[in-house]
Amino acid sequence: MTQATGIQHTIYDDNNIFAKMLNGDIPYHKVYEDDKTLAFMDIMPQAEGHVLIIPKQKAVDLADLEPEYAAAVLMTAKKVMQAQRQVFAREGIIQMQFNGAQSGQTVFHYHLHLIPASVHELGRHAATEVDHEKLAETAKQLATVINA
Amino acid sequence: MTQATGIQHTIYDDNNIFAKMLNGDIPYHKVYEDDKTLAFMDIMPQAEGHVLIIPKQKAVDLADLEPEYAAAVLMTAKKVMQAQRQVFAREGIIQMQFNGAQSGQTVFHYHLHLIPASVHELGRHAATEVDHEKLAETAKQLATVINA
Repeated sequence: MTQATGIQHTIYDDNNIFAKMLNGDIPYHKVYEDDKTLAFMDIMPQAEGHVLIIPKQKAVDLADLEPEYAAAVLMTAKKVMQAQRQVFAREGIIQMQFNGAQSGQTVFHYHLHLIPASVHELGRHAATEVDHEKLAETAKQLATVINA
Repeated sequence: MTQATGIQHTIYDDNNIFAKMLNGDIPYHKVYEDDKTLAFMDIMPQAEGHVLIIPKQKAVDLADLEPEYAAAVLMTAKKVMQAQRQVFAREGIIQMQFNGAQSGQTVFHYHLHLIPASVHELGRHAATEVDHEKLAETAKQLATVINA
């Protein structure tokens, strides 16, 4: 059944920054990778330890996500969140994911945020300057826990 | 491998409000249901059309979620989000999920928020008084689109 809604769904752009990372064209601080997902440090963190998880599927947002990638993304998120809890010795981890520019999405490849923070204190993106040495160290700590 | 982290994981309480809803002990405005998930209107909405999705699994948070329920929750979220886009004629839908009281979680049964809003304008929970007639009407509109 087709309904006219006035909502134009964004077309997947093969040159988006996460596609380039998946292609190996751009460096990143890897936390975890398997055949269906990739997890890496957000370089514009809203809190220390902010990780992004993406599916290895050309999905703009949740509307495109296939079931096997949906399961894989959340299972990777589970691994990363448990590692964040250990590394940062805190219980509270926010999971967020934006669908559409209108909601706050800025890269149009589905990505799930895992942020060690409280929703009441959440910083804005790029609120603090990024220290890549620190990000690399955090990625290593998380990866070590995940692979333990 | 056991590591002392100081993080106590919350134990599932069979009397939490979402468990009571799943047991049929408390009324709610249903949007969608299948064998693994339930979607209903948030009665303390952060924006109009705020829906919650829960797995039919006794999971406190993401750390407990089993793969088949993870997939089911995101596939139900996909259905609901597409219905929200139609019913509210908007593209932007925020997905959020809190793990641990420290992050903002208040009911300790895993639940995923789908909020037709922008992250930059997101209202606080219970910012506006709830009109149950309006919620019932919205639930019906979303269910109609999902089942079309």
